[in-house]
Amino acid sequence: MLHELKSLKSKMKKKEAKDKIKKLQEDISALQLPLSKTSSGVVIVFEGFSASGKGQMIANLITELDPRFYQVHSTPKITDTERRLPFFHPFWSKLPLKGNIAIFDRSWYNRAVNEDKQEEFADDINTFERQLVDDGYLVLKFFLYISKQEQKTRLKALQDDDFTSWRVTDRDIKLNKDYDDRFDMIDNLLTDTSTNYSEWYPIWNENEWEGTLKVLTTVHDKIKKVIEKGVKQTKPTEYKFPLIKMPLLDDLELRANITDDYYKKALKIEKASLSRLHSAIYKEKIPVVIAFEGWDAAGKGGAIRRLSWALDPRGFDVIPIAAPSFEAKNRHYLWRFWNEIPKDGHIAIFDRSWYGRVMVERVEKFTPNSRCIQAFREINEFEKNLADWGAIVLKFWIHIDKDEQLKRFTERQNTPEKQYKITDEDWRNREKWDKYEVAVNEMLQKTSTEYAPWIIVEGNDKKYARIKILETIKKAFEQKLKSLNDE
Amino acid sequence: MLHELKSLKSKMKKKEAKDKIKKLQEDISALQLPLSKTSSGVVIVFEGFSASGKGQMIANLITELDPRFYQVHSTPKITDTERRLPFFHPFWSKLPLKGNIAIFDRSWYNRAVNEDKQEEFADDINTFERQLVDDGYLVLKFFLYISKQEQKTRLKALQDDDFTSWRVTDRDIKLNKDYDDRFDMIDNLLTDTSTNYSEWYPIWNENEWEGTLKVLTTVHDKIKKVIEKGVKQTKPTEYKFPLIKMPLLDDLELRANITDDYYKKALKIEKASLSRLHSAIYKEKIPVVIAFEGWDAAGKGGAIRRLSWALDPRGFDVIPIAAPSFEAKNRHYLWRFWNEIPKDGHIAIFDRSWYGRVMVERVEKFTPNSRCIQAFREINEFEKNLADWGAIVLKFWIHIDKDEQLKRFTERQNTPEKQYKITDEDWRNREKWDKYEVAVNEMLQKTSTEYAPWIIVEGNDKKYARIKILETIKKAFEQKLKSLNDE
Repeated sequence: MLHELKSLKSKMKKKEAKDKIKKLQEDISALQLPLSKTSSGVVIVFEGFSASGKGQMIANLITELDPRFYQVHSTPKITDTERRLPFFHPFWSKLPLKGNIAIFDRSWYNRAVNEDKQEEFADDINTFERQLVDDGYLVLKFFLYISKQEQKTRLKALQDDDFTSWRVTDRDIKLNKDYDDRFDMIDNLLTDTSTNYSEWYPIWNENEWEGTLKVLTTVHDKIKKVIEKGVKQTKPTEYKFPLIKMPLLDDLELRANITDDYYKKALKIEKASLSRLHSAIYKEKIPVVIAFEGWDAAGKGGAIRRLSWALDPRGFDVIPIAAPSFEAKNRHYLWRFWNEIPKDGHIAIFDRSWYGRVMVERVEKFTPNSRCIQAFREINEFEKNLADWGAIVLKFWIHIDKDEQLKRFTERQNTPEKQYKITDEDWRNREKWDKYEVAVNEMLQKTSTEYAPWIIVEGNDKKYARIKILETIKKAFEQKLKSLNDE
Repeated sequence: MLHELKSLKSKMKKKEAKDKIKKLQEDISALQLPLSKTSSGVVIVFEGFSASGKGQMIANLITELDPRFYQVHSTPKITDTERRLPFFHPFWSKLPLKGNIAIFDRSWYNRAVNEDKQEEFADDINTFERQLVDDGYLVLKFFLYISKQEQKTRLKALQDDDFTSWRVTDRDIKLNKDYDDRFDMIDNLLTDTSTNYSEWYPIWNENEWEGTLKVLTTVHDKIKKVIEKGVKQTKPTEYKFPLIKMPLLDDLELRANITDDYYKKALKIEKASLSRLHSAIYKEKIPVVIAFEGWDAAGKGGAIRRLSWALDPRGFDVIPIAAPSFEAKNRHYLWRFWNEIPKDGHIAIFDRSWYGRVMVERVEKFTPNSRCIQAFREINEFEKNLADWGAIVLKFWIHIDKDEQLKRFTERQNTPEKQYKITDEDWRNREKWDKYEVAVNEMLQKTSTEYAPWIIVEGNDKKYARIKILETIKKAFEQKLKSLNDE
């Protein structure tokens, strides 16, 4: 990709270029207001060789921009906190609000290359960008490059100035020496990650204004197009996940139940084992993500409570998921869940989860069906990111039948201390039981994977349900710890 | 403080205690809903000796709690990101929403002791807690302790179990050996930081249920009282800041102006110097906090834009401050500003700031006047925290007169591309000019300190204003760098 432009020489005069740049800066600035009214966010990535002029390029881009609608993210170094989170976490967390622009001064590409993971992560990078584009984000990627000789000259100039000499590291010098190898490696990476939905723009940046003109023109034209026509969703492609066959809810046998006496003993035993295992999970720095879903009044809260008794409160968080805030609603729907991913060794327990996308958002039509359906793939990919990172991912669907729900609703209604738990919305949801059942069945079929399985919990007997959940988690912990020991 | 309780022995039987604990757990849980409707947040701190049972104590406290309304924060280790922020940042950022409970498993106390800063920070800790209490937070602090022998026994038991042995560090063993010295040091710290608004509760925790009973009873009774009576504000005490005498706005001479030619040259020179200095600021890891305030249409945006031209975009953020989000409105008003403090070496430029508290919130009566007035002290303290940490703190008041504002408003109204900048609210604010002027004058008198001065910028001539701002920042950078070199 990089070679093509190397020989191009512009014939434009400097004065003419400067005027054009000034005009483009103003034009881009004028696009900010109409952009802010669309549902598209803009993600602009700047990567490039050392001393290729990224800082100056970003300065040229933002000169006229209204700071309320853009943000520059410098991610040259990944912090130790970020290292305890999945690879894409630092970037997901910096996703701009729709209508805004986020400029990444170095990005997931730099991270992949620095950690020598460019081959391992090339597919995931394409997935990440595809997810953004499908959600209406415009992704623009610029790679700034200069010749080996020019780089040497610029590094020398930086070194010779007292104010800037510290910016030149031994690594920069080494990279200049290894220029040719580096060039080929980067060229391959750009080729592998230049897609029809997220293209790379190589910028030959030896002459500052020439590169600037190209970047500004591209940014301007692409944003203008987005304002006029929106972002085009990607073309569906083949994909395959290791799905686990799930039963239909209607076929479930819900008579399972256990005696009080058995329950008490089992609870004590499970609590003790889980407690010990949690200590090992913490020590081995294994992250754990557990999602609870189920019908209203299915017993999610009670189950989470019993689970929390078994765990060291310093090692887990319960994350209740309600309607999204303004901040979340105006970003990719997975954004807020990425932000709640625990650091390694910690457990995140979600009381409802990202599956709202294919349940409430779908049934209540909060989101167009076409977008909801894409979520099956996106969620499988999201959970794969977590599993690849080393996380235990478990999803519980606590199932009760319609009669049992009515019994529990009525009890809540008739018990003063429990009345706050039952709202008109619960009754309205109940009326849509059948629609939800169709959605849930599809969800279970399409998102139960070997690396992030759904566990259906027969919930008519709360005690049975709680013990099954604790046992399942215990086994998952044991299995993971065993697999680590086997390695 | 710690010795007093050492000899107490309860005569209660275990069964009786267990029943009481169960009852208290349920009673505390029942308080969550009424608490959620108050404007008080609850901050509960657990500190204690190694193996004194903090984890179990927190587990006992949260057993029956509804996870939607509480959060446990484990802060045993400060991350490297947090180390690049002010001392209190990790704790401010974890402040609970009003109506919620945040439980800190180790806290600012542990941080101070670990970094051997307990003497340096004792006053600041009292200030921090006073600020919370004055904003309606209930602060409860428990210190769990056990005897040297008991600690030794418990550490041994942990070491002997394969699942927990890794929890015992060399440091724990050393601290057990140094028990007596440690005991005295902690005792002093607790004495220095036990105030009438934020008391320490020492918990002799050799017998688990005895300590638990005391903790739960205290938590229950204090939260109940808060629900019934709210949190009592602290009694005003004497304080003194190194204030700089400021002129009244009315006495300002606004005729200052410069020629276009001078402006262009000066801009170029200032830009070049600032650019070089920014590099040094970054290298020396000096944090910079700059706030811009001023009348509507005073030229804040234009000034910020010129400033940003001189800076490397990777080293600064512009933070536009609008009306607070739900998240911010339901926390201490300084919370959102703490969250935006830059890490060391970075520059945060606030387009409007925490001074909204003593301007718009005061004039429009969004906040009771008594609370607004406390902000003078709180803001001086906040900025002192920043300055003590090493930050350059500068605040610009860009001043124009009423005629100039009218001219600019009219121009905006008559220029299609500028119309979005002028709203009905701007006209309404203009009508309250006199009230704002009184508030601003008081603000300037009471919050211009040697470590965080206000700079009044005569803004009728935009060009003059921009150059003055750039020069002021340049001088502040030079002075700070010089003071570092002199050290």
